[in-house]
Amino acid sequence: MEKLPGSVRIKEVGPRDGLQNEKTWVPTESKIAWINMLSNTGIKEIEYSSFVNPKMIPALSDAREVGKQIKRNPQVTYSALVPNQKGLEYALEAGVDGASVFMSASETHNRKNINKSINETFPVLKGVIEDAKNEGKYVTGYVSTVFDCPYEGRMDPEKVITVCDRLLELGVDDLSLGDTIGSAVPSQVENLLDVILKRYPQEKIIMHFHDTRGMAIANILTSIQYGITRFDSSIGGLGGCPYAPGAAGNVATNDVLYLLHGLGIETGIDEKNIQEASLYIQSKLGKVLPSRSLLANAQ
Amino acid sequence: MEKLPGSVRIKEVGPRDGLQNEKTWVPTESKIAWINMLSNTGIKEIEYSSFVNPKMIPALSDAREVGKQIKRNPQVTYSALVPNQKGLEYALEAGVDGASVFMSASETHNRKNINKSINETFPVLKGVIEDAKNEGKYVTGYVSTVFDCPYEGRMDPEKVITVCDRLLELGVDDLSLGDTIGSAVPSQVENLLDVILKRYPQEKIIMHFHDTRGMAIANILTSIQYGITRFDSSIGGLGGCPYAPGAAGNVATNDVLYLLHGLGIETGIDEKNIQEASLYIQSKLGKVLPSRSLLANAQ
Repeated sequence: MEKLPGSVRIKEVGPRDGLQNEKTWVPTESKIAWINMLSNTGIKEIEYSSFVNPKMIPALSDAREVGKQIKRNPQVTYSALVPNQKGLEYALEAGVDGASVFMSASETHNRKNINKSINETFPVLKGVIEDAKNEGKYVTGYVSTVFDCPYEGRMDPEKVITVCDRLLELGVDDLSLGDTIGSAVPSQVENLLDVILKRYPQEKIIMHFHDTRGMAIANILTSIQYGITRFDSSIGGLGGCPYAPGAAGNVATNDVLYLLHGLGIETGIDEKNIQEASLYIQSKLGKVLPSRSLLANAQ
Repeated sequence: MEKLPGSVRIKEVGPRDGLQNEKTWVPTESKIAWINMLSNTGIKEIEYSSFVNPKMIPALSDAREVGKQIKRNPQVTYSALVPNQKGLEYALEAGVDGASVFMSASETHNRKNINKSINETFPVLKGVIEDAKNEGKYVTGYVSTVFDCPYEGRMDPEKVITVCDRLLELGVDDLSLGDTIGSAVPSQVENLLDVILKRYPQEKIIMHFHDTRGMAIANILTSIQYGITRFDSSIGGLGGCPYAPGAAGNVATNDVLYLLHGLGIETGIDEKNIQEASLYIQSKLGKVLPSRSLLANAQ
């Protein structure tokens, strides 16, 4: 195929975005064992937990213990989600190489999700980003609902750009653009990337797809043909919505690797080790995870 | 997006390819009610059953009753799978607009599936195709394992061409090329279509993808960008392998429609009616079907 990159970087977000909505408690020692397995798959970036208020995300209430006890592979960058300076403090104490801040391109989604307007969010993130940079940490800015918002519908790329511009001014190192409700089709990906890649260097852009309607792999294919080389994904496709039992969540690392390796694109990640780590967390959650490749290979 | 067609034709193969491996018996009257629902979704082509020996496919042993009792919509073409002249006789008696014959591009898969070599298969199909054409019926030739064979591995497009050439010589009206084990990635689709579309008019080519590893929607996107405008799909993604419980089967009509309509491509098919017909057969089978869009919309 034309226009394919030689290699692609994957950030594994399963331990954070994947687990955060799970109702089944995964014991701290199992999380640690699992993240240690992930650290030995060849993955170079892992988001290991979230330092959001544990009342909001009880599934990740042990972020500090996890951060302190995982066995760090020097080849891997470990990051965590932080909502504010207090969260960053805990994250720094537990050990992080990177901090991820988050907000939405949609005013309504931002208010529903973090109880602030977009304009009220920037000063909070400014403090976090400054503190993290002062500690020599890498900062990623997650921007959610970049294609469609469950409240506002189709998003204008200009709204996305406004938020991205401001986050970059505040000092984030890169941006992860999220199809939060997994509704985008490849033409929407093209329309957004047309604008985004004229404005920012591609190395700064990570695409974050959910597979809610089965479009994620096609959206990733379209993204790489547009020059994107960085993606977030979640092992086994972990990460469904709590209000949609059984629905697919984040795009599965397993399926992304099947695509990329099939296209001859290098990732440095071992599919067999990913399969093993998928089966491990699947057994801890006691349910079948949505990744198609996981299921096909488990037979 | 560039190079997208204005419209695409979908053949619904759920009642045949979808049901054939199901262990749960769907009562004849439920099959009939379901096919009648499908007939009113805007779908123009339905493969309603198989006239293969009922001992081989017990799930479809009521093909004759189904064919005789469904309420035909004059806008819809009804076809059935036929293995030989005896099967065709039954199909004609039950009523068909089209007959589908089948064989494999792989010698080993052909032997395992129909107990004959590729060369021994042609004379059998010759008789079926002649008889069907004499009765004024439309004939489709299914060619399976066009990308990868579970026994022979990667298939050379030349082997596929050899079988396609011969089937067209024998008089089939069109060819459905199957990713039988759902293993292809988009670069394989391009490599095959490079050869196929130089040799045959695109109207004669139908692509038949399985979503076993989550690649089907990306493969369909690649196919339409290559000029293909005809696809087989199965409602709800029905059609898993009997030896892989829970594994995804045929690409889901629901997901294909979400892609195509999202890209602004017309199909004439109503997604809500498809959702309803999916929920109907899901309730008869007593299990959650693999279509991502079905699940997302069912919440």
